[in-house]
This record gives sequence, structure tokens and C-alpha cells, in this order.
Amino acid sequence: MLAHGSSDAKWCTTFEKLAAPTLSAIPDSVVAYMELSQPSLAEVVADRSAKGCSDFVVLPLFLAAGRHLRRDVPAMIAALEEEHRVSIQLAPPIGESPQLGDAIRSVVEDTLETSHG
Amino acid sequence: MLAHGSSDAKWCTTFEKLAAPTLSAIPDSVVAYMELSQPSLAEVVADRSAKGCSDFVVLPLFLAAGRHLRRDVPAMIAALEEEHRVSIQLAPPIGESPQLGDAIRSVVEDTLETSHG
Repeated sequence: MLAHGSSDAKWCTTFEKLAAPTLSAIPDSVVAYMELSQPSLAEVVADRSAKGCSDFVVLPLFLAAGRHLRRDVPAMIAALEEEHRVSIQLAPPIGESPQLGDAIRSVVEDTLETSHG
Repeated sequence: MLAHGSSDAKWCTTFEKLAAPTLSAIPDSVVAYMELSQPSLAEVVADRSAKGCSDFVVLPLFLAAGRHLRRDVPAMIAALEEEHRVSIQLAPPIGESPQLGDAIRSVVEDTLETSHG
């Protein structure tokens, strides 16, 4: 799972909590960061490919695709594929999945219940 | 629901889809943007307060709180409360809710099934 990354440690903590159910459920899953935070995507791919992994799926923890997901990340992935001779598939950002829309509705319902007593 | 906003129309379309289940379920809910896109938060508050609404809950469609949610949005809200004499409650960003973590696990499971299946 790819998160943006931030110089703010609290920001990363939120993503680690968000990822926790996935990390427990999916063997060999890991959170990597595009920039500013560790481990970077490059570090994870280098480490895993050295251990024999040749196929990666990168799932962006982004609500929507902007410049990063349309340009920067594909360029980064192409370079890593060439450098490590691996295959890396870039999945759509999580925000494009209907499950997210349903989860948001549930969060809004809970928030309104709390705020209105 | 407050989204960041973007000059890219595709970006906004993703947020409108994400919000669709909530908009159907919650009366008077609306997507507003912090910047770059319409309607802005200021426009929505001005319009609704003119129609007699005095209490607002702003739920950020952000995965984690960064500078925007810690500084810019609270300042924007304080100014709108003063200008329109309304009460605006800023909820935590959606990414801090456990429902989101569970939805992400489900998206990852579906993505891996598709890519390996």
C-alpha cells in the first residue's frame, strides 16, 4: 500500500492505523511512502526483490488520482521495474472503490449521531 | 462533507462518486470544497444560513490531518461562524475512523483477487 508520506509523524500514524486491518489480513503486505517518510517504495521493492519477490501490486492509499498518481508514481514504478527486473502493477486509488463510499456513509452517520447526541 | 478541491474535473468526479451513498442517505448533506472547486465551503454556509440553518457539521474527506485541517480549515470555519452567526463543528477526517481501515482491507482483498485471478 502506497501512502503519500509527510514530514509530520502524526500523519503517518493515521495511515499506519488505517492500514492495520489490511496488514493483519494480507501476508507480505506493507505500507510504503511516495516521499518524505520511510520506508519508501524504492526501499521496499529493493528489499523484497533481493529476497526473491518479482511481482508487486501497489495500491495507492489516496482518495483520488491527481498529478502524483498520474505522473510521478508511474515514472517511479517504471524505473524500479527496470532497475530490479520485477513486475509492479499499479492499482486504482482506494477512493475509486465503492466500498469506500459505503464506509464514508457509515462514518457520517456515526458522526451525526455523536454530534446530535 | 469537505473535500480539498482540484483544478482537475476528474478529481472532483471521484469525490462526488465517493459521496454519493452519503448524499442519498443523509438529508441536507452536500459536498463542499476547500479551494479550487465549487461549491466552496463559504458558499454552502452562506446559502444554508440564509435559508435558516444555524448548525453545521463539517466532515473532512481527507485520509489524515495535515496543515490544511489543523490550520487553514479551522481558521476558515471561525471566520464563517462569525460572519454568519452560525455554529460549525469540524469532525475528525474520515481516515481516523475504523470503518475506513476495514473498507481498505476489503479493497485490497478484491484488488489482489483480480490481479491474481
